[in-house]
Amino acid sequence: MKVSARNIFKGRVDALKNGAVNSEVRIALPGGDALVAIITLASVQSLELAVGKEVIALVKAPWVMLMTEHADIRLSARNCLTGTVKAIELGAVNAEVTLSLAGGTQIAAVVTREAVAELGLKPGVTATAVIKASNIILGVPA
Amino acid sequence: MKVSARNIFKGRVDALKNGAVNSEVRIALPGGDALVAIITLASVQSLELAVGKEVIALVKAPWVMLMTEHADIRLSARNCLTGTVKAIELGAVNAEVTLSLAGGTQIAAVVTREAVAELGLKPGVTATAVIKASNIILGVPA
Amino acid sequence: MKVSARNIFKGRVDALKNGAVNSEVRIALPGGDALVAIITLASVQSLELAVGKEVIALVKAPWVMLMTEHADIRLSARNCLTGTVKAIELGAVNAEVTLSLAGGTQIAAVVTREAVAELGLKPGVTATAVIKASNIILGVPA
Repeated sequence: MKVSARNIFKGRVDALKNGAVNSEVRIALPGGDALVAIITLASVQSLELAVGKEVIALVKAPWVMLMTEHADIRLSARNCLTGTVKAIELGAVNAEVTLSLAGGTQIAAVVTREAVAELGLKPGVTATAVIKASNIILGVPA
Repeated sequence: MKVSARNIFKGRVDALKNGAVNSEVRIALPGGDALVAIITLASVQSLELAVGKEVIALVKAPWVMLMTEHADIRLSARNCLTGTVKAIELGAVNAEVTLSLAGGTQIAAVVTREAVAELGLKPGVTATAVIKASNIILGVPA
Repeated sequence: MKVSARNIFKGRVDALKNGAVNSEVRIALPGGDALVAIITLASVQSLELAVGKEVIALVKAPWVMLMTEHADIRLSARNCLTGTVKAIELGAVNAEVTLSLAGGTQIAAVVTREAVAELGLKPGVTATAVIKASNIILGVPA
């Protein structure tokens, strides 16, 4: 598989909570990082997800929000992943920012150049990537 | 908190309807504008949301769609917010369009330049920002 | 109606499954292609959706992911639509890729230039557009 999404996380299901329609899937990433995804119960069944199963989690970079100095706020988004800015690539209007999490996972976000300036983002700075659980697509080997 | 999202709306919860898994949160903005967000019931509880509580609603500009001449259509999206184009910043491919709503709230949308031309967007033109309720992230003071 | 979304699909509801909160709507497009959308039951009711009703489905191009060589993977996303690359327009950082499906439906995706290179996208190449069912906005005539 080749995919346009800039974020392809390989991990293992380590918790699975089924509701009537949706399911919450917790994915352990190598190094101790983790992601929570919400997908339909129908997808859990068709992908035969179970605790311990290997999965990939796909997230397009424009679906990732970045935050700094957030000690004063709590968010509804299930994934708030704090790391260090590793690289910034500037376009005319947008910028692609890569974070490194503690466990080694890297996350790419596309944000505006204006946001990069406002947040004072540059390599080495601490920042948090915010990803809504419903914006994660899961995949399993066919 | 500093955040890359171009839309940071400060408001107050003025209605809250809990389902088994998701909750619908209505947020009154200063000036009479309003937003509807859908978040998980778990988030409603962990953020201790209640009617009257101050919240911020975060929306990335690429998640906002723009419409004009829409008298002939009804949409499934819960937030269709009509206002006036205040500013347009053109990039190579994309454009950032800022709308002013009646109550004074400003909304930023990233759309293609092509769309700006097709919709005839320019300062002073009436347009509607469409935001899916599930694309809104809520936050409360920590 | 004029709308900034690059994807405006006209079709007809051909299946409708209501849950307690959300509904799954299957839309038959001309030529045999199909889309699955998930919207709230409240929206199904306010739009008076029913099998046979004409609808439009709106999807912003940055919400579409592209895949190639995906015989080895199954995804949680409900819409995996395989077609042929018809056109690619390159920006500084992003590219707009248009696919033609078997039934004639065209789908626009915004992905990075880097992804276009990695996936080897060019006119004539087979690729799959991935759209989450919850990222589709439905509309009906007013």
